[in-house]
Amino acid sequence: MVGASIEDLAARLRAFAHERDWGQFHTPKNLVMAFAGEAGELVAEFQWLTPEQSAAVMADPEAASRVRAELGDVMIYLTRLADVLGVDLIEAAADKLVDSARRYPAEQARGSAAKARDNGPDAP
Amino acid sequence: MVGASIEDLAARLRAFAHERDWGQFHTPKNLVMAFAGEAGELVAEFQWLTPEQSAAVMADPEAASRVRAELGDVMIYLTRLADVLGVDLIEAAADKLVDSARRYPAEQARGSAAKARDNGPDAP
Amino acid sequence: MVGASIEDLAARLRAFAHERDWGQFHTPKNLVMAFAGEAGELVAEFQWLTPEQSAAVMADPEAASRVRAELGDVMIYLTRLADVLGVDLIEAAADKLVDSARRYPAEQARGSAAKARDNGPDAP
Amino acid sequence: MVGASIEDLAARLRAFAHERDWGQFHTPKNLVMAFAGEAGELVAEFQWLTPEQSAAVMADPEAASRVRAELGDVMIYLTRLADVLGVDLIEAAADKLVDSARRYPAEQARGSAAKARDNGPDAP
Repeated sequence: MVGASIEDLAARLRAFAHERDWGQFHTPKNLVMAFAGEAGELVAEFQWLTPEQSAAVMADPEAASRVRAELGDVMIYLTRLADVLGVDLIEAAADKLVDSARRYPAEQARGSAAKARDNGPDAP
Repeated sequence: MVGASIEDLAARLRAFAHERDWGQFHTPKNLVMAFAGEAGELVAEFQWLTPEQSAAVMADPEAASRVRAELGDVMIYLTRLADVLGVDLIEAAADKLVDSARRYPAEQARGSAAKARDNGPDAP
Repeated sequence: MVGASIEDLAARLRAFAHERDWGQFHTPKNLVMAFAGEAGELVAEFQWLTPEQSAAVMADPEAASRVRAELGDVMIYLTRLADVLGVDLIEAAADKLVDSARRYPAEQARGSAAKARDNGPDAP
Repeated sequence: MVGASIEDLAARLRAFAHERDWGQFHTPKNLVMAFAGEAGELVAEFQWLTPEQSAAVMADPEAASRVRAELGDVMIYLTRLADVLGVDLIEAAADKLVDSARRYPAEQARGSAAKARDNGPDAP
């Protein structure tokens, strides 16, 4: 599936669910829970690592394989959820990025860790 | 950003972080936490809805706007995390889907809700 | 440990970490991640259940055992995190309950599902 | 509510939900989602902090107040969920601690960070 798009992935997940008659389970409520469960597994991969170790995690083949698999699981449920809801993930993200650019102008945010943090848990 | 790809989004997020000198905060450990925080906000949108109400959530303009914004936030941090780790989200998801197809063959899984659930929390 | 308090549990967790020299890993940042990971596992137990099935989950011995174990894991990390931070969980919860009572007076909130939901994802 | 127990808190939460006729919303499925949402908010408080900064977070009155409030929210939903399910949180945690003591004997686990991590994301 090299070079495939989110739309391709969404179509494959739709077919996958359809072939198994799993559409009945794929309410947004259930899918967001499945997504949250997988998000928890992804977090767990990093929980005991220092920030520095986390930056080097892909250099360890076993850890890299686990992290990649968890990212895949998370992406599966996020794509499926967005597809069921009819939301374009890339567009939704791009729109939020425009908001963030407004809230954190580059000139003021640059080199200002403390200030970024003063804005609360949202930034950076 | 209509028709944009994950790669386009990743490039924009990279530039956004670079312009603000936020790369120092964007360790995988920090990014996975930011992702988990946003995942929690997405879950919260569905917490008091029945499964039926969750399926109709996009018909309510206000709720739809909130859900779309939370999906955008989640997608931003997931894309940024995968970019920092050098993981292709679509490929990682496609590989996991191949695994799932092996674990849950369509003929056996079809129309079998109870059995799917007997496989534990992973399926469907 | 029948009849034990959170303080008793916190003391046991403190001793457990000390005996293994794990205090070095138990920064609030790491502990909150471990907590989030376990929270994800707890959510996963309920993801494919209908609300009705979720209400009956403890009637199934296997599911009940898994749910109880996940609750235990979550409680372990929450208690440990609060102990490291010096926060009394019961008092913190009681204080938030006072806030909630102010925001959602019983007379107005009663029997008003739709209205409760209009207040956003926070209520009920 | 100084010196109060989890049972006291559970009783207060039960009364609170009853007075507002919110029992109908308090299925385990909904409550575990509310819990996960609050867990996300707690994680968010620590996402941009270094491990060292996280260890000093309670020295900052504003951050301390936010962290305490988030711990309170998490504790409220965890206590309510366990109460609805009929699970004793302290006992469930104590039982899991006995399991952990078996899996990670103190002599072998002590001073062995790398080894602890080799056991996968579960330890320490």
